[in-house]
Parts: sequence; C-alpha cells; structure tokens
Amino acid sequence: MQIDTQKARNFCEALFPAYGFSADESKIISDVILRADLYGIESHGIHRLVRYHDEIISGQVDVKAKLETVHETGISACIDANKVMGQLTGVEAMNIAIKKALNSGCGMVTVRNSNHYGIASYYTEMAAQNDLMGVCMTNTEAICVPTFGSQAMTGTNAIALAMPAEPFTFSYDASTTIVPRGKLEVYRKNQEPLPDNWALDADGNPCNDAAVVVENIIAKAGGGIAPLGGLGTLHGGHKGYGLSIIVDLFSAVISSGLTSNHVNRKPGSTGICHYFMAIDYGIFGDKASIKAGMSKFLQELRDSKKAQGQNRIYTHGEREAELMQQRINGKIPTNEKTLEEMKNIARNLKLPESFLLLP
Amino acid sequence: MQIDTQKARNFCEALFPAYGFSADESKIISDVILRADLYGIESHGIHRLVRYHDEIISGQVDVKAKLETVHETGISACIDANKVMGQLTGVEAMNIAIKKALNSGCGMVTVRNSNHYGIASYYTEMAAQNDLMGVCMTNTEAICVPTFGSQAMTGTNAIALAMPAEPFTFSYDASTTIVPRGKLEVYRKNQEPLPDNWALDADGNPCNDAAVVVENIIAKAGGGIAPLGGLGTLHGGHKGYGLSIIVDLFSAVISSGLTSNHVNRKPGSTGICHYFMAIDYGIFGDKASIKAGMSKFLQELRDSKKAQGQNRIYTHGEREAELMQQRINGKIPTNEKTLEEMKNIARNLKLPESFLLLP
Repeated sequence: MQIDTQKARNFCEALFPAYGFSADESKIISDVILRADLYGIESHGIHRLVRYHDEIISGQVDVKAKLETVHETGISACIDANKVMGQLTGVEAMNIAIKKALNSGCGMVTVRNSNHYGIASYYTEMAAQNDLMGVCMTNTEAICVPTFGSQAMTGTNAIALAMPAEPFTFSYDASTTIVPRGKLEVYRKNQEPLPDNWALDADGNPCNDAAVVVENIIAKAGGGIAPLGGLGTLHGGHKGYGLSIIVDLFSAVISSGLTSNHVNRKPGSTGICHYFMAIDYGIFGDKASIKAGMSKFLQELRDSKKAQGQNRIYTHGEREAELMQQRINGKIPTNEKTLEEMKNIARNLKLPESFLLLP
Repeated sequence: MQIDTQKARNFCEALFPAYGFSADESKIISDVILRADLYGIESHGIHRLVRYHDEIISGQVDVKAKLETVHETGISACIDANKVMGQLTGVEAMNIAIKKALNSGCGMVTVRNSNHYGIASYYTEMAAQNDLMGVCMTNTEAICVPTFGSQAMTGTNAIALAMPAEPFTFSYDASTTIVPRGKLEVYRKNQEPLPDNWALDADGNPCNDAAVVVENIIAKAGGGIAPLGGLGTLHGGHKGYGLSIIVDLFSAVISSGLTSNHVNRKPGSTGICHYFMAIDYGIFGDKASIKAGMSKFLQELRDSKKAQGQNRIYTHGEREAELMQQRINGKIPTNEKTLEEMKNIARNLKLPESFLLLP
C-alpha cells in the first residue's frame, strides 16, 4: 500500500496548525517526518504521527514553548528546549551550530528537555548542505541493557554524521543498540523467533521471544535489547554499551539534562536530550581538496571487491538518496493501520473531510 | 610469567636512546608503551617492542624528524608528522589540542604521515588529567572488510573518549572491528575455530579458520575481519563499517593523508593518520556540576540490576584503573617469546649485559 508523497505532505502541513503550530513550524515538522518516509525509515515517518499526536495532546510537547539558551560561547551553546516539539528543536539547534561553525569553525549545541526529533540525519545533512560536517546524537527512553546487566539503562542512542562528498553526501545514522525496538516488533508480528544475541528477558538471560521482550520494555519490567555487538563481550557488546554511554554524555550529561534511564519516567514531559555539532572542515586545509579526498575514499570502498553472491557495496546515505529520488515526486509506502490512525487524528481534530480521503 | 614493572621501564628508557631518541623522548615513548601493559592491553605493550624496533631500523619511523603544522586556527591544526614515532606524535598533538581547548574551549588536531602510537586512551586521558574531555582516533593498515565486500579496506580504526568522573575517569577505547587482529592470533595459536561472524576468507565467505584469515591478511590476499556488528547486516555490521569510515574521515581525510586502504603499501613509511580532540566541557555549563552528573550516571550503570550469574557491571576505564593500581609498583605479565625478543633487541643494539638478565 502506498500514498502520494504530496498528499502525505499536505496532510501533515494541515495537521500541525490544528494543534496550534504556525504554518512555518508545521512545514518544518512535516518536512522532517516526510524525509524519514522518503529515506525508507518508515518507523520515523507518518507511522509515528499517532505517537506525536498523543504527546502533543497529553502536554509532553508544549506547542507554545520556545528554546532557551542557558549557556553560550562563540563555539557552543547549552539549550533548555522547554518541551518544544523535537523537530523544531532539532532544526533550530542545528541552525545555531551551523551559524557558529560558519563564524568560528565549529559549533557544538547540547540540548535538554526536548522530545523525539525524528531521524537524526535530517539535521546532520543540514550542516552538509552548508558545506560543513554535521554530527548529531540523541538519547531516548531506556531500552538497552549494559553488558552483564538485566535492566535497560541507555536508549536507542543513535549517532549520526554527515560529510559532504560527490556524488552524494556521506550520511551515517545508526542506533548504538544491536537493533532498534521496531525490528523486534516486526519479529513479534510475524511470530518469528529473534536471532540469538539480540535481547534479554527480565532476569538478564538471552531471550528469543520478541513478545516477551517488547512487553517487558513497555511495562519497564526488566530486560531489553543488547547493545551493538550483542550480549556479553564475545562479539564486542561492551563496545556498543560504551558508545551508548557516549551518546548520553554528549546529549544529557553536558546539557545537565536527563540520562536515558530517567527519560519518560514522569507524566507531562519526556526529558529527551540531543547534541548537535557542525564543523567547517576548512579549518584543517583546503575544502575542495578535502571533499575530493572523501569522495575518492568512498568510491574506492564502493569499487572494492565484492563478496561471493554480492554485486554492490554501499556507502552510508547512498541507498537513502536513491530512494528519495524515486519517491519525492511519487509515492511512499504505508499500511492500512497508519492510514486508519491518520484518519482518526483528522476526525479528532475536526480537519476537513477531504483529508479523510487518503490515500 | 611476569616481569618487574620498573625493570621493564628501565629497559625501555635505556633502549630508545640507543636508536637516537633523547632521554625525554625515550621517557615518553616508554610511558605510553608501559601504560598498555599496566592496563592489561598486552598487545600494545612491551610485546610490540620488536615491531617498533623493525620500524625504526627500516626507517619507517624517522628518529630525527619533527612534527610540522601545515594548517592552523585557534581551535584546529593539521599536522604532517613526517614519520615521527607515533607515541611522540600522539603526546605532542594532544598537547596542542589541550592548549587550544584551554584557550578557546575546543582543540581539534588531525595528523597525517605518522606511525603506530600504542593505546589511544593514553592521549584521551591526558585531556582528562587537564579536566577536559578527550577524543582520539587512528587508522591502521586495512584489516576490516566492508559489508558485502571481500577485501579489507579499513583498519582496526579505534575510537577513544575520556571524560573526567569520580571515582575514576570514564575511558572508552575500542576498535571498530568485531575483534582486533591479535584475538585471531590467539585462536590460531590455540588451534580453535573462530566464532561465527568474525572473519572472511579471500572470496568474502564466512571463515572460521584463524590461520587462513591471518595469513591472508599478512599476504594482503583478500578477506579479513568483520566490522563491529559482524558479517552482513543482521547484527548491525553496516554500523561498525560506517564507524570505521568515520575514523578514516577524521584521521586521514581531513588531514589529507592516507586512508587505511593505502596505509603500509610502500616501503619506507606507514602513512598512519590520527585525530585528537580536547573539549573544555565548561563551555556547556558549570564544570563541577557536569562532572558530578557524569559520576552519578556511571554509578547508576554500575549499580543497575545484574544478569543472572553476573555480580558486576563495569563502566569503561574501571578495569584498567584497577589493574594499573595492582601493577604499577609490582609486575606486568609477559611471556618467554617477548623476553627473548627484548634480549635480541638489546644484543642487536649492544646494550649493557645487565639488560639481558630480564626478568
């Protein structure tokens, strides 16, 4: 099942003003959400509208709040987002980092008390569009269990980095867990056993039953997902565990905000924290030559010898750029449930009947 | 088998002057090497003296060369190491980053044309000793195969980060490969099959024979080690692959140096590249309060519920700090082969007979 990209955009741009966002704010939020669908990251696209709806209605997102800079230097800022919508926080905070980088070579912005901001690569690619390197991190509600632990303490804790290159930007965006929670939900729906090394039950024992793990996560009953590298240390799980701590350090610790294990623990606010960084890589040498060096290295990777049975090696951001090209003037995939949720939201907000005719 | 820590230090401090290093330089090199043994990272300690010996004798390390700053701003530098010994490069480059961070809030130093510099955490902890956050990366000769590839294109490509905390510094230092090459050599020696998901043969097929993989790596015959996350994408191998690209970006691309796939390809120089960063985290708020926040988060991780059968959750740097405490006025582990290599080096350099009486 598919929906016209433009129809989905029109829906979002009409939806968010109904909550009280300005037209400009609604365009920004819609663009971040749609980018996920264009990139093939459906979990962060229109599929998530129902969760944003709940967060706005419940007051976890404060429609009228503004970002507040609580500490600032020429190369840095610490921002209290005051429960602003995550996408608005992300765009404004990355714009501050970009401005500082253009003025001073580097801008680092740490943010506390925000909300879910969609795909991190949206923000890092804003930096790349300004011919800067972009870095972005965010914590989330705890779902990831430390090595040798049985209790989720860190979040999905994605790390994203974009660097200008030809023919397309290098754009890395990945959680520091072995898989995101959405992947477990797919296995649960298909009633398939989870691969070994992915998840733990409430006692910290390896668990292949997706339903058990997902229900425990929702109930905060213990257990959760393994860090990148898996359970224990044999395949490097302690490395993913450490990377997830680093994400909490940059987003929550230096912003004096809530680390993942305290996120979403109180009604009325999530407390999610982010980190944004832009670097003018011209502070290290000639920009054209450095960018050409990146393009050459990525091309060498793509051109390197394939494994038997494989005909392509990707570099990060390539697949997303291709999908967006196909989808931007066409359609994005969706499903019956998401469309039903969108229709319910429209009815709930008393939007015009025309919006119920999706797709 | 063990050796007195002080004896090992005396040996190193007498050895390096014999190559032409000054007494001060020899103390620095020795301290970096010994720190690895104190931290339990034997692969980077005195075990490696024979490789450094070969690199110095062959001219890959230039004893008389000096670092050259080729580009500089108040927050950045690009340095050509001119084949300086890696440990001297590392200490000098991190000192530049620290000085910039103390003056400007942040210092980023990228380095080309260096050599193997030992353990990265030595340098990040220099920043932490100055109450700064430290970041360090280095590329190496290619040993890691891209997702869907069959040819090693990126290196061990470790990422290190240190952040001040009580009762000890958070200190992360890990390769972006699933395991370092040394681990494969242990399996080969013990004639044990490699765990699944670790390595590939020359055609890019999964391979459990450590001897085949190690010999292919040495002969540059194809195949190699999987990125963190393993082979393919099921367990997130594409994430480790992306992290290894990021390390080459910071160390080799922005320094206009050699990416891992070009390192160690010509006699006379390795071309290894590094990245050093120091951040005065006071640019985000009150330092005492941020440091206390980090200490609290790490304590919450260590205190969180253990998996069945486990009685301890570590945070990164904890085990190393404990080992160093035990070993610094005592002994470090070694083996017959390393001692024999040390004696041969001493004979080769005509050092006094007393140095042959180890341990």
